[in-house]
Amino acid sequence: MNRQRLIEQIKLKRSFLCIGLDTDINRIPKHLLDLEDPVFEFNKQIIDATHHLCVAYKPNIAFYESLGIKGMLSLEKTLNYIPEDIFTIADAKRGDISNTSKMYAKAFFENMNFDAITVAPYMGSDSVSPFLTYNNKWVILLVLTSNKGSVDFQQIEDTDGNKLYEKVLKISDKWGDDNNMMYVVGATRVEDLSNIREIIPSHFLLVPGVGAQGGSLDEVAKHAMNYECGILVNSSRSIIYSSQAEDFAEKANQEAKKLQTRMDFLLSEKGI
Amino acid sequence: MNRQRLIEQIKLKRSFLCIGLDTDINRIPKHLLDLEDPVFEFNKQIIDATHHLCVAYKPNIAFYESLGIKGMLSLEKTLNYIPEDIFTIADAKRGDISNTSKMYAKAFFENMNFDAITVAPYMGSDSVSPFLTYNNKWVILLVLTSNKGSVDFQQIEDTDGNKLYEKVLKISDKWGDDNNMMYVVGATRVEDLSNIREIIPSHFLLVPGVGAQGGSLDEVAKHAMNYECGILVNSSRSIIYSSQAEDFAEKANQEAKKLQTRMDFLLSEKGI
Repeated sequence: MNRQRLIEQIKLKRSFLCIGLDTDINRIPKHLLDLEDPVFEFNKQIIDATHHLCVAYKPNIAFYESLGIKGMLSLEKTLNYIPEDIFTIADAKRGDISNTSKMYAKAFFENMNFDAITVAPYMGSDSVSPFLTYNNKWVILLVLTSNKGSVDFQQIEDTDGNKLYEKVLKISDKWGDDNNMMYVVGATRVEDLSNIREIIPSHFLLVPGVGAQGGSLDEVAKHAMNYECGILVNSSRSIIYSSQAEDFAEKANQEAKKLQTRMDFLLSEKGI
Repeated sequence: MNRQRLIEQIKLKRSFLCIGLDTDINRIPKHLLDLEDPVFEFNKQIIDATHHLCVAYKPNIAFYESLGIKGMLSLEKTLNYIPEDIFTIADAKRGDISNTSKMYAKAFFENMNFDAITVAPYMGSDSVSPFLTYNNKWVILLVLTSNKGSVDFQQIEDTDGNKLYEKVLKISDKWGDDNNMMYVVGATRVEDLSNIREIIPSHFLLVPGVGAQGGSLDEVAKHAMNYECGILVNSSRSIIYSSQAEDFAEKANQEAKKLQTRMDFLLSEKGI
């Protein structure tokens, strides 16, 4: 999906919500466990209940890999089930030497037909560039993550006064552009969001951490939204696990609806 | 496999060779392509021809993921085929927030029973620590990689005069110890190897880049070997693709034998 189409979807649905399909077999409602493919069945019902409220789904690949081949089959079925007008993100955090990153690009962009993949920047340019050779496919590079360990290295300051996460933004800006690169910036780092928006005014940001991790939607919008919206706000656990009973999809719908309603307001406020 | 057993294997086999099973369906000999599982058949013959010359195998997960479920089945069969006295490394370069890293640990340590996994440090402590809760399993943390992009961030110097890769060594030293952590240091960065060995005198280093990427075995041994050996030197393409004809396994044996013979000499020289 290209940039223009993503922006159209945001305007059409009055939403910049991304729902994380971090589907954990130990957390899904018990009544699904007797079915042949409980993980797919859970995802299917979540998608049915929320697809009109969000513009992106982001399955975290770890949850599927942890179930082995069965999990990868559930992921494949989930991807095929997601409506074609929704942006799909493989939350995979890959990144390896050039000839290996090519293989990951093939796995996620060709075989699985994801629109985007999250990539870790540690190995530098040639670990990222193989993902940028595809038309209408996206790299979403880790910049400032929402976990507590993000302070260990991402905030280290160099002799020029640049923090590591700022260097990642500035150096990676030469690898791609705002048509094929986005950045991951945690909602738990609101104090840095304005700074990031200044460095990269037009790129989309993928913002995890709203919900279970404690980030605030309004704060994120205030500091990171641009004139085209420019943010995808992700929520995973607080939507998909809002109930563990038979009403889980209905409850997921309600949680997503709350966020979408607020997003509609925030978009209007920005004149979008 | 624990540290003591790994050192015993090195002494027994007079080798610290790790062979990278980066098995690319487009590079394996054509006569294998008619078989039901060409990737596994290739690996099987490579293992038969080299298992007495190496102490570790390191399948790069990207090559298997790029073939979808079929590739993951080939990987599973390969792992089951590797003799029990050989150390197995999932070259996966994973790393995500805590609850997700737990899932990757489950995938690679429980389901696939690898001894070790390569992990990217960018997200910090809680992205790595879930891998360190397993007995006799290892994290191999990226420090200084062998690709050209490694200069983009790994060599950035902070205000205290520490390069990022040095910070990774120093900070991660608090997460685990030399019984459950190793570090990836590229053979193409020989000038930094002595420095790294000074910071972490006793940890094992996994050193890729000898062979196709141009690194020298003697230089690596000179700068990074310690009194217990302390290095695993990886070679992938220059061994497994030394011939693309029917004699590929025999040629792989010869290439591995050359390295093992030199390693025997280097171990003796060090009094091991």
